[in-house]
Amino acid sequence: MSKPILLYTFPTPNGVKVSAFLEELKTVYPSVSIRNTQKEPWFIKLNPNGCIPVIIDRARNNFPIFESAAILLYLQQHYDPDNKFGWDCKANPNEYSEALQWIFFAHGGVSPMQGQLVYFTKFTSEDIPYAKKVRYLDETKRLYGVLEIRLSQDRDWLVGPGRGRYSIADINVACVVRIHAFSGIETVDEWPNVKPDPGFSAGVDVGRT
Amino acid sequence: MSKPILLYTFPTPNGVKVSAFLEELKTVYPSVSIRNTQKEPWFIKLNPNGCIPVIIDRARNNFPIFESAAILLYLQQHYDPDNKFGWDCKANPNEYSEALQWIFFAHGGVSPMQGQLVYFTKFTSEDIPYAKKVRYLDETKRLYGVLEIRLSQDRDWLVGPGRGRYSIADINVACVVRIHAFSGIETVDEWPNVKPDPGFSAGVDVGRT
Repeated sequence: MSKPILLYTFPTPNGVKVSAFLEELKTVYPSVSIRNTQKEPWFIKLNPNGCIPVIIDRARNNFPIFESAAILLYLQQHYDPDNKFGWDCKANPNEYSEALQWIFFAHGGVSPMQGQLVYFTKFTSEDIPYAKKVRYLDETKRLYGVLEIRLSQDRDWLVGPGRGRYSIADINVACVVRIHAFSGIETVDEWPNVKPDPGFSAGVDVGRT
Repeated sequence: MSKPILLYTFPTPNGVKVSAFLEELKTVYPSVSIRNTQKEPWFIKLNPNGCIPVIIDRARNNFPIFESAAILLYLQQHYDPDNKFGWDCKANPNEYSEALQWIFFAHGGVSPMQGQLVYFTKFTSEDIPYAKKVRYLDETKRLYGVLEIRLSQDRDWLVGPGRGRYSIADINVACVVRIHAFSGIETVDEWPNVKPDPGFSAGVDVGRT
């Protein structure tokens, strides 16, 4: 099948993760933009959490996958046969684990903390300086600092021997860091090795209507 | 080596995830309790984020692993040869992916949102009802509801064919849900299929000093 992946998305950081990676994989795919329909019963059947992104793999019996990071890992396993953007879990278990470690770090740290910063900065009617500044701005900056520690250790990318190589671990976190200014962190000059856009540009507007 | 895994931990939900799973694996392991030393240089070398849990696999050239969910996946791959608590990434790629999906759902959703609820309920001097009630209590309850949707669909466990089977996907989220009362959600009666303690009891106090 020439277009195996059906993508439900909207260009949030989590949505962009998937469309940017699909573009890197040169996978031709149809996408469906959904913004206000995520809690409808047909979508809850695909993802009980009612969030984009979700993909359906039409080449593998319409298998559905939700959670942006799980989608990256799935696509890498099934649609990146030369492991250009990741590592085989059996052949290179250490690099595979390191990728998981940094993906979970971003998924449980950078992403939700910056998400809370955006929430309290942009989407609440109540002005709560404590939540904005003390809790989420400072914590998000600290987490950028953790990425900087890793990337300043004579390496270019989060995972891989030597200087590392560009992988889904970088795509996963870069799609969050790239909206730093929107989130209230004007520049990333403080973390010179943190790359908000490590090369991808295609796919970032997929789902925009 | 009879005791391959060295565990740095403290009995937080993330710490308990690992000690509870190590007990399930019947892996004999030494643990080191660390509470106030997580930002010291020797520990930052193991985990740049400066958080427990961290394991060192002494049987595999002292390979270090951080991020609780990445540790569960690592231990399952290397120390659960019969895949009693998970699925082989190659032999059962769909179940493996489903486990990842639910692990990421907990790691990026239930865990950080409930963590913020605990933070605003227990660890701030400022009383911010909006953050507590509107944002984090309601959101954590919604996420418990997502687990309930999954577990009420004629299944006992999050992942696996039929009624599913107990796996690291359950351990991963149960270690967060089990402190619901501490977090401000007195009972889980509202979500009758959500199990805060799906069988494990050993390992929950490892690291307590």
